[in-house]
Amino acid sequence: MIAEIVAVGTELLMGQVLNTDAQFIARRLSEAGITLHRQIVVGDNPERIRQAVRDAIARADIVITTGGLGPTADDITKQACAQALGLAMERRPEAEAMVRAWFAKNGREMTENNLRQADFAKGARILPNANGTAPACIVEKDGKAVVNLPGPPNELTGIFDSSVMPYLAERSGAVIVSRYLRIFGMGESSVASRLQDLMETCENPSVAPYCSTGEVQLRLTARCKTREEADALLDPLEREIRARLGNVIYAVTQDSQFHMEHALVCALRQSGKTLSTAESCTGGMISSRIVNVTGASDVFLQGFVTYANEAKVRALGVREETLAAYGAVSRETALEMAEGARRAAGTDFAVSVTGVAGPGGGTPEKPVGLVWLGLASQAGAWAKALHLTGSRERIRTLAALHAMHWALEACREENAGE
Amino acid sequence: MIAEIVAVGTELLMGQVLNTDAQFIARRLSEAGITLHRQIVVGDNPERIRQAVRDAIARADIVITTGGLGPTADDITKQACAQALGLAMERRPEAEAMVRAWFAKNGREMTENNLRQADFAKGARILPNANGTAPACIVEKDGKAVVNLPGPPNELTGIFDSSVMPYLAERSGAVIVSRYLRIFGMGESSVASRLQDLMETCENPSVAPYCSTGEVQLRLTARCKTREEADALLDPLEREIRARLGNVIYAVTQDSQFHMEHALVCALRQSGKTLSTAESCTGGMISSRIVNVTGASDVFLQGFVTYANEAKVRALGVREETLAAYGAVSRETALEMAEGARRAAGTDFAVSVTGVAGPGGGTPEKPVGLVWLGLASQAGAWAKALHLTGSRERIRTLAALHAMHWALEACREENAGE
Repeated sequence: MIAEIVAVGTELLMGQVLNTDAQFIARRLSEAGITLHRQIVVGDNPERIRQAVRDAIARADIVITTGGLGPTADDITKQACAQALGLAMERRPEAEAMVRAWFAKNGREMTENNLRQADFAKGARILPNANGTAPACIVEKDGKAVVNLPGPPNELTGIFDSSVMPYLAERSGAVIVSRYLRIFGMGESSVASRLQDLMETCENPSVAPYCSTGEVQLRLTARCKTREEADALLDPLEREIRARLGNVIYAVTQDSQFHMEHALVCALRQSGKTLSTAESCTGGMISSRIVNVTGASDVFLQGFVTYANEAKVRALGVREETLAAYGAVSRETALEMAEGARRAAGTDFAVSVTGVAGPGGGTPEKPVGLVWLGLASQAGAWAKALHLTGSRERIRTLAALHAMHWALEACREENAGE
Repeated sequence: MIAEIVAVGTELLMGQVLNTDAQFIARRLSEAGITLHRQIVVGDNPERIRQAVRDAIARADIVITTGGLGPTADDITKQACAQALGLAMERRPEAEAMVRAWFAKNGREMTENNLRQADFAKGARILPNANGTAPACIVEKDGKAVVNLPGPPNELTGIFDSSVMPYLAERSGAVIVSRYLRIFGMGESSVASRLQDLMETCENPSVAPYCSTGEVQLRLTARCKTREEADALLDPLEREIRARLGNVIYAVTQDSQFHMEHALVCALRQSGKTLSTAESCTGGMISSRIVNVTGASDVFLQGFVTYANEAKVRALGVREETLAAYGAVSRETALEMAEGARRAAGTDFAVSVTGVAGPGGGTPEKPVGLVWLGLASQAGAWAKALHLTGSRERIRTLAALHAMHWALEACREENAGE
């Protein structure tokens, strides 16, 4: 099955809003095993909408449109699609009831033009919209399907997951199950080269990488008749990936929005341990990411942002002789920062970061990108150097990830040892 | 002049990355007075790229492609465009020199396949890429132009502003000058309703709003024969906007990447003052944003992330009686946090934040979204309450912005008073 997306809206075309709807639909189609060939954006112009839809129907089995279902004269997507399919429009009483019910529920008066939202191509399957006035629809003709969805992302995503995914599954007779493997310590290209054959040849289950600064996420998706069958496909694939990548996978979740700080807070909570941070070049980025995790207050007590040398001395007890002899960016300072934070905050673990984030401040001995991390626990204190590249923001982000990952490993090791 | 955008990349088509490039280009074209009719996304498939480019050239005067200029076999955009235009490819020595220079400068070894990035359609105008290996190009034929740009946003935006905008201006005989007005303390819809007539009717100079959490940026753009003429158009427009919006404009810059923390660091540097922070629910977000500004070390000495009550007592000297009587989220605690940070860090100013970021932890007296800010300076200490809404991340981001804005105002007032 081949699909195309036609996004309608002058505000999209002109770049006033980002086309997140197309991204969302593209990902869902890929999970559903449907091949997407094109995304198109056109403005609120009847002739150009008709032309784009007509071309798309000629090439694809399913055409999904976004936007232009509202009550104003600009909202012409359904009409343009009906014309492209050669179908007449009609007012649908069940859709009219939905529109009226929405206004009644939200205590707003309905003007007559809102009933345009109850007009559909003859024979359309109407899809209720839990988050807005405009119902969506699926129109089938000659084995092809046109799906008209509203533009606001919360309305579109709701309708897609509640009505369109089941329709696509019904057309192909399947359930769709995904799991996410989160990877740290191996770059995108290394991951890709080790898994290239799987990513290229596996269609069900499928493997797709998503990258952000310093992290790679693999999404494994299976389409089957039942969830059990899907898990039976995903388990051996996950084992195979683990065998190839080694221990760089730090978490496996059902949730795509799970990051290093979630894994760290989770591990600390499970073991009943606490953490503090001592940050120089990251400047509070680590503590801020940790505090963004709901429930962080049980495990994260205090952070020290010691940007100036005096602050390192005063707040963390770093010795002036250490700073004078080795400098702020050094093994010795990183160690004393971590030990000082652990002592001052009274936590089980402490991590420290001190580095040269650039763009200025580098020297031949201590170039931009040199970052020292420290880690202190009941068992002792350690330090290690990172040699990072990129912009100031990238160096800081990578340093924060490395520090959190080190604390995560330490916490897990201590758990395993107990 | 009519334009179309053809974005090439399977990762875009499949929704693995958002098409921010198309948004950027769409906005710039609108500023340059060029009408955009379509955006298209296709994957790394030669036949579908050729088809999309051929269709676009038939409809438009300028076709701008993104992506597919790299060294791998997947990178075929230039070749597909050349075929669509009926032009042969050739290796260009000046482009080869650019590619070799990039590898030399970055100390990396160059493999032979990288020289594919020096192959262009005959007669192409080559555009240097300051941020990556692949040079871009403009190919003209029969009065039409095809522009091939690399996909990575930092490369694309750099080339667009340094080479493509001047080319578009040259074609239309104009220079394009923009300035950015940054606004805090007025929502997008209020700004839009006060400026609606200007945004709808002003074509040259034009006004366009860009929004991020808590902030609105207005881009004012003029197209003229000279920079002086452009400024002469922009000055009265800026005055008119200032008259309508009052004092919510906290900065006017030539640079679109200028945020509250830049304004704050700038104001502190100008006045030779220093700042420290005491953060509870923001957890280091303020210090992290400040430290991301190059040169922050001159003015930002230390941050305190006091998430637990004990930390507030120990690090900042907040009195236990204060916490017991008023709670951690209170005027009194915010005041003592700011005063304690200023004292402990020895800075001219200190800001503090303590609030309920949610989703849990709210009570009828102190609901989710209640945030107290504190500010301490030589002149005294003050506190104020914010009532914010939204997700945990949104509440934290807004609280951080409010705190930085308050410190900015205090710094400017003290400067004005001296």
